Amino acid sequence: MSVAADASRQATAGGASIDALMALVARDLSAVNTVIMQRMQSPVSLIPQLAGHVIAAGGKRLRPMLTLASSRLCGYQGDRHVGLAACVEFIHTATLLHDDVVDESDLRRGLASANTLWGNKSSVLVGDFLFSRAFELMVEDGSLEVLAILSKASSVIAEGEVMQLVTTSDITTTEAAYLDVIRAKTAQLFAAACKIGGVVADRPVAEVQALEAFGMNLGIAFQIVDDVLDYSAKQATLGKAVGDDFREGKMTLPVVLAVASSAGAEHSFWERTLEALEQHDGDLETAIGYLEARGTLAESVARARDYATRASSALAGFPDCPERRALAEVVQFCIERAY
Amino acid sequence: MSVAADASRQATAGGASIDALMALVARDLSAVNTVIMQRMQSPVSLIPQLAGHVIAAGGKRLRPMLTLASSRLCGYQGDRHVGLAACVEFIHTATLLHDDVVDESDLRRGLASANTLWGNKSSVLVGDFLFSRAFELMVEDGSLEVLAILSKASSVIAEGEVMQLVTTSDITTTEAAYLDVIRAKTAQLFAAACKIGGVVADRPVAEVQALEAFGMNLGIAFQIVDDVLDYSAKQATLGKAVGDDFREGKMTLPVVLAVASSAGAEHSFWERTLEALEQHDGDLETAIGYLEARGTLAESVARARDYATRASSALAGFPDCPERRALAEVVQFCIERAY
Repeated sequence: MSVAADASRQATAGGASIDALMALVARDLSAVNTVIMQRMQSPVSLIPQLAGHVIAAGGKRLRPMLTLASSRLCGYQGDRHVGLAACVEFIHTATLLHDDVVDESDLRRGLASANTLWGNKSSVLVGDFLFSRAFELMVEDGSLEVLAILSKASSVIAEGEVMQLVTTSDITTTEAAYLDVIRAKTAQLFAAACKIGGVVADRPVAEVQALEAFGMNLGIAFQIVDDVLDYSAKQATLGKAVGDDFREGKMTLPVVLAVASSAGAEHSFWERTLEALEQHDGDLETAIGYLEARGTLAESVARARDYATRASSALAGFPDCPERRALAEVVQFCIERAY
Repeated sequence: MSVAADASRQATAGGASIDALMALVARDLSAVNTVIMQRMQSPVSLIPQLAGHVIAAGGKRLRPMLTLASSRLCGYQGDRHVGLAACVEFIHTATLLHDDVVDESDLRRGLASANTLWGNKSSVLVGDFLFSRAFELMVEDGSLEVLAILSKASSVIAEGEVMQLVTTSDITTTEAAYLDVIRAKTAQLFAAACKIGGVVADRPVAEVQALEAFGMNLGIAFQIVDDVLDYSAKQATLGKAVGDDFREGKMTLPVVLAVASSAGAEHSFWERTLEALEQHDGDLETAIGYLEARGTLAESVARARDYATRASSALAGFPDCPERRALAEVVQFCIERAY
């Protein structure tokens, strides 16, 4: 059975989750968590306090799990993947801390964000600490190839974040520009997380590139769906904040597509709300109404599905095994979140 | 003639400058500037714009000059020191960008700071970019030893910045705590900049450690004098801002020493102005009056002079040569700035 066929059947059936992935890497992930807890320590107590808050609130640990599963998919038997997965999570946490400062976010996964609790200053500096600590861990690992991959990923992420800042409130932003932003700010780290799994396993270039392509396409699909969810009724029923991107004037795909085909009063609405950031009660509902009328939420999910297909296809060259099936299911899970 | 004797004679004579150092490394420094200009480029034009502003405003390039002169002092004949000096300057620039966000500074060396011109968000993200770019450059250089030194320095710097944040407005801050802060936030990068000069030259451990000790003690002396200058009439006549530290409630050495020996109305003054940050017109002048009455500005300079002596002594094992003399003169220059 090809992965693509498998993927499409699951998508139809629904119910994909990351449970299989979590079960497969549970032991390794527990070792990663130990490294994270040890290496976020500092005699400066505010650092582990703040870092611990963000890391504990910490979500699914999707990125380090990708490193763990990718290395196992490549038959890796050592333990270097544990420390490197911790590096990936440190880099991710550092960017979250800086993101929340940049976005002026009050909430992160339903909890008060670190910048709300400890102030922007601490968030910037603890982000810097975790970022540096990630590089210290990589140096201990000793692979210049891994260092090259993750230092490159880090600078591309920063470029992506700046691009996002520049396109914010710019309603002429194109789909291509949006894709450049999310490729850099999100997908690059997914790609790097998977790629280093192949590198520690010392696999041939073609396999390492396949893992990179898997991570890149998964990351793009993941971010598109995330951006759809910010306008989604489902997200609201889960108690998660909706409309953050709208309030900040972020040019995400559903909006980019809707603005491009709008005219008259509808176009003026986007100019007022996203460009001038003049927003009133009811504007978010009006925005969602426009997105639904134009079908751009569904269109965005369709785009995400294209990238998901590419991600699954990238796994085709690997032998059928629990790791490959679990990674393919993660792809489906990312898409099904949208419904 | 011993370096210590040389140093004390110069201190008496006055007139030390960094001109000799600049002349010695001029060619190398020009190559460093070329690397900096090339490697701060990005297709995201805001990045070179903002980075260029900070780097051009860029002060004396003291830290990269330390790397250049240290490697030459060790007889190094290659060109790796150029790229590594650029790394040091990138790390320094990244911390400046994040510092200005943390300090809410409006000015940096008399020019509008990047956060004033482009906003805090851009400053945080471009700092992240430069920091990542520094690691990319180090990876290209390919020395895990250098990577270890600079990744460690970076996390210690972040720890120092957080320590400074925690001690701000804490008028019980001790001299030891102050020294911990400046050792981490400032002296660590001076030490690393010098140390990697010895590492690229492949010198024995004792020599590399001597360079590290030189940089560490120079960095401490440099920062103490910087902190004295923030209360100095001389600084005011140079058109530089005075009183920034006071307004922010920073517990720098002159204040730490003054608060420790204060009582009554004088102690209440520090509680109101530094702890509660309730400040009125004339408070800075009153503060300077207290510091002068208690002699803590002069006492701080005396402390700086002790570290300067240690810095000069650390050079004693190196052969007398233009580089050693230039570095010894930099030490004197750092002290003489205070007058």
